Amino acid sequence: MVLPQLHLAMSLAGDLSFHETKQSWLKRMANFVDIISTFFASIWKSWYRVGRDDPRKVVHAVKVGVALTLVSFLYIFEPLFKGVGKNAMWAVMTVVVVLEFTAGATLCKGLNRGFGTLCAGSLAFLIEVVAERSGKTFRAVFVGLSVFIIGFVATYVRFFPKIKKNFDYGVLVFLLTFNLISVSSFREENVVPLARDRLFTIAIGCGICLFMSIVIFPNWSGEDLHEYTVRKLEGLATSIEACVSLYFHDQEKEGSTIDVKSTKEMISKGYRIVLDSKSSDETLAMFASWEPRHSRHCYKYPWQQYVKLGTVLRHFGYSAVSLHGCLESEIQTPPSVRALFQDPCVRVATEISKVLLDLASCIRAHRRCSPDVLSDHLHQALHDLNSAIRSQPRLFLNSKNNRSTFKHAFNSNWMVSLPSAKSDAAALVEKRNNNNNSNENRVRDQPVLRPTLSKIAMLSLEFSEALPFAAFAALLVEMAARLELIIEEVEELGRQASFKEFDEELVSIEVRRNETKENVKNRDLPSHEVSQAVD
Amino acid sequence: MVLPQLHLAMSLAGDLSFHETKQSWLKRMANFVDIISTFFASIWKSWYRVGRDDPRKVVHAVKVGVALTLVSFLYIFEPLFKGVGKNAMWAVMTVVVVLEFTAGATLCKGLNRGFGTLCAGSLAFLIEVVAERSGKTFRAVFVGLSVFIIGFVATYVRFFPKIKKNFDYGVLVFLLTFNLISVSSFREENVVPLARDRLFTIAIGCGICLFMSIVIFPNWSGEDLHEYTVRKLEGLATSIEACVSLYFHDQEKEGSTIDVKSTKEMISKGYRIVLDSKSSDETLAMFASWEPRHSRHCYKYPWQQYVKLGTVLRHFGYSAVSLHGCLESEIQTPPSVRALFQDPCVRVATEISKVLLDLASCIRAHRRCSPDVLSDHLHQALHDLNSAIRSQPRLFLNSKNNRSTFKHAFNSNWMVSLPSAKSDAAALVEKRNNNNNSNENRVRDQPVLRPTLSKIAMLSLEFSEALPFAAFAALLVEMAARLELIIEEVEELGRQASFKEFDEELVSIEVRRNETKENVKNRDLPSHEVSQAVD
Repeated sequence: MVLPQLHLAMSLAGDLSFHETKQSWLKRMANFVDIISTFFASIWKSWYRVGRDDPRKVVHAVKVGVALTLVSFLYIFEPLFKGVGKNAMWAVMTVVVVLEFTAGATLCKGLNRGFGTLCAGSLAFLIEVVAERSGKTFRAVFVGLSVFIIGFVATYVRFFPKIKKNFDYGVLVFLLTFNLISVSSFREENVVPLARDRLFTIAIGCGICLFMSIVIFPNWSGEDLHEYTVRKLEGLATSIEACVSLYFHDQEKEGSTIDVKSTKEMISKGYRIVLDSKSSDETLAMFASWEPRHSRHCYKYPWQQYVKLGTVLRHFGYSAVSLHGCLESEIQTPPSVRALFQDPCVRVATEISKVLLDLASCIRAHRRCSPDVLSDHLHQALHDLNSAIRSQPRLFLNSKNNRSTFKHAFNSNWMVSLPSAKSDAAALVEKRNNNNNSNENRVRDQPVLRPTLSKIAMLSLEFSEALPFAAFAALLVEMAARLELIIEEVEELGRQASFKEFDEELVSIEVRRNETKENVKNRDLPSHEVSQAVD
Repeated sequence: MVLPQLHLAMSLAGDLSFHETKQSWLKRMANFVDIISTFFASIWKSWYRVGRDDPRKVVHAVKVGVALTLVSFLYIFEPLFKGVGKNAMWAVMTVVVVLEFTAGATLCKGLNRGFGTLCAGSLAFLIEVVAERSGKTFRAVFVGLSVFIIGFVATYVRFFPKIKKNFDYGVLVFLLTFNLISVSSFREENVVPLARDRLFTIAIGCGICLFMSIVIFPNWSGEDLHEYTVRKLEGLATSIEACVSLYFHDQEKEGSTIDVKSTKEMISKGYRIVLDSKSSDETLAMFASWEPRHSRHCYKYPWQQYVKLGTVLRHFGYSAVSLHGCLESEIQTPPSVRALFQDPCVRVATEISKVLLDLASCIRAHRRCSPDVLSDHLHQALHDLNSAIRSQPRLFLNSKNNRSTFKHAFNSNWMVSLPSAKSDAAALVEKRNNNNNSNENRVRDQPVLRPTLSKIAMLSLEFSEALPFAAFAALLVEMAARLELIIEEVEELGRQASFKEFDEELVSIEVRRNETKENVKNRDLPSHEVSQAVD
């Protein structure tokens, strides 16, 4: 009795375990399918996102495919192959390595490659002339020694900042070609045809690359840099306005229309594109300087001025970060105190951001703009902020003394005669007039606390609470001062790049036209540019 | 009579002009020699400067020379050449392209190259298997099509941020090798030995590169990143201390010991290395992540934490820029007012910079540090600054009321009972305790202006003059707050990287040892690192 039962039990267990195995196997299968489909979905997503963010990337990829197919015809078609033979591989190699996203980058690489190959070929030829009259052993030593010396010198030269910036790739190709030619000359009798054929096929490759990148849907680094600069100005404008409106946001608690989180994101997004712009600015300007596009105007387009403007914008951006820091600070000025200065602060910020937007639209339209027109309202707003701050003691008396026993002791008339320090606006104007004043001059010009002031009593606003607001206001004033530097650089850019002269009538038409243009071009930052340089 | 005279005159003129020509020729020659010698002197100067700033660059150049000579032996020595034949050129090419300044960069490029070649070879082999059974025309179409599709896909994939960051060079090599093999397979019958030999020679090249960069005087990206982080902390410390001492410099006019110009340079040099550190941080961390050096500890070394710390330091740097901006601002607080706060401000700055230097020496010594020990003095200094600012009205009464008619009206005893707002130090401590407090909580916690305050009268320090100082003080307080973030990140770094535990006894020994070490290593920033990536 025991045995059959055991058998039954075992077979049942076997059945069960088979069922379990099957089910767990099915589960695993389903999991696996899930993982695979998630994987492909994520690939498709990033695939789609890259293309949507910048359709030019898709176009570029197609261009590379076409260029490679074209150059492979050198192998595929019999007559072409007879002409160049196995050297066709150098053309293929050139296309893969040289064809870059923008015309400037391609030109830079292509010309560097061409020039490097030429120099290396000549040098290898010279060394060949010296070496060919000697015996085998001497020749081996001579070639080995020249490989070492040229290798050392070329590598060392690549550390020089000037060489590194413009000709790094050229030196690399020089080293490569020199080595290939000089060592293969050791095994081949006549190295001249080898060098000539190689140069010829590299020229074919470079030709295809230049054609694809300059003639077929070209992307210009110069345009990217121009657009990027405009975007930076706009980003700063958005950031500052959002920052100030958020700073005074607590006041509007009842009818609040501001989404704090998204506003904060807007603020940091606005200045972030400015902060880390150094390397992209420099790379774009370097590539742009290789682009021939603007030389039809017979002057050198001032790409370096964009870099300079970028530096000034970056410094402006640091103030924007500090302004944002005021929002995040641990010690906050009470909302009731902030409310007193809301109006003038918001006006200053609005004016600053208006000036920045004006500058942006000027640059976008390749048009010059008059700094006086831009600064007039700002100076007024600054003056009002200054007045508001100076009138603050009276305001406090008015708002607080309703419950105070000192109401009558502190007559508001006392405050009217507050002697005005040099207003910020006046300081700004003066600064423009004598920009190069020495430090000593500045100290002498500044108003020192006058004895008369000590006659006036004011309500104590405890300093450690007023501190954050003072910092906020000081940063706004600082920004207004820095704005002058930005305007100067934009002016200089307009002068050097021969932008159109300022013309009131044209402006309104252009602004409208460019706004529609902008809606069409809704692209990301040219981050690919920079990384393209890392190839 | 006339003719001989004329003749004489002419010959005289000829003689004169000959003399003049000779002299001007000599002059030009001297000029030319001058120009040439200046040119060579400048070349020698930059040559010498590069080597002096970082002797490792000279070593690297020698290493490249040696590696190239080694690889050229494949051609020069008969038995070696018989083994590899003309494919030796791929080894030369690999050495030129792959051997980079640091071990991480070389490994990254070498492994990318090896992996890319392997993938491309396999794919080309697969396509060959499909194509070889078809006719010539179909084969041509098939090869052309596959070149186009692979070219498109590979180029497009290089735009993906993740691929771009780590495998960009690998994809480029994949594309290159695939094209070379698939098009040359069209002309050669058996492509397998071709691919195998090529892979073999590339492996030889990679082997030489890895040997030269990992075994012979290796430079580690990880060490550079570590050292760079320490230098950034030290730079910020120097910058802040110099900034504050310069701000209060006017006071010491008689016995002035500060050179204003060099101090300003010191300030901007201190924070400049932090500001534009993003790309170098990321590149160094990326290369460091390829380095095998730390895996003997059986954990992944947290290079990304260095990048995070770098971000926090950069934000701290923005505050340093704003602090520097206070020095350059148009509207300055009168020296007499500044003098009142000199002592506490200098102490806060000294404490901040001391904390930064402590953190730097902790990181340098791979040692953890207790944040409580670091912050105690700072909190005291902040508290004193707060007291100084709160005691400011009384100070003014004391200093100014000698000439004032209000002397007796404002008894200094009135000020003693000034109700203390939450001190900055307390705010900082509280912040650490509940870091994630909602905005509303924060507003509720903050002291609102109390009605009792309105009973106290104080001397008017005109606001627009106090503004810049308030901004200065607020920035100092802000920095102290940000310091907490830096300490947090350094702590996190110490935890993740398993730094030694804090040990009072060891510290003093280590500090001394590291100071002597630092004197030996007096190197520049690893700027070459970043630019090396641009090859």
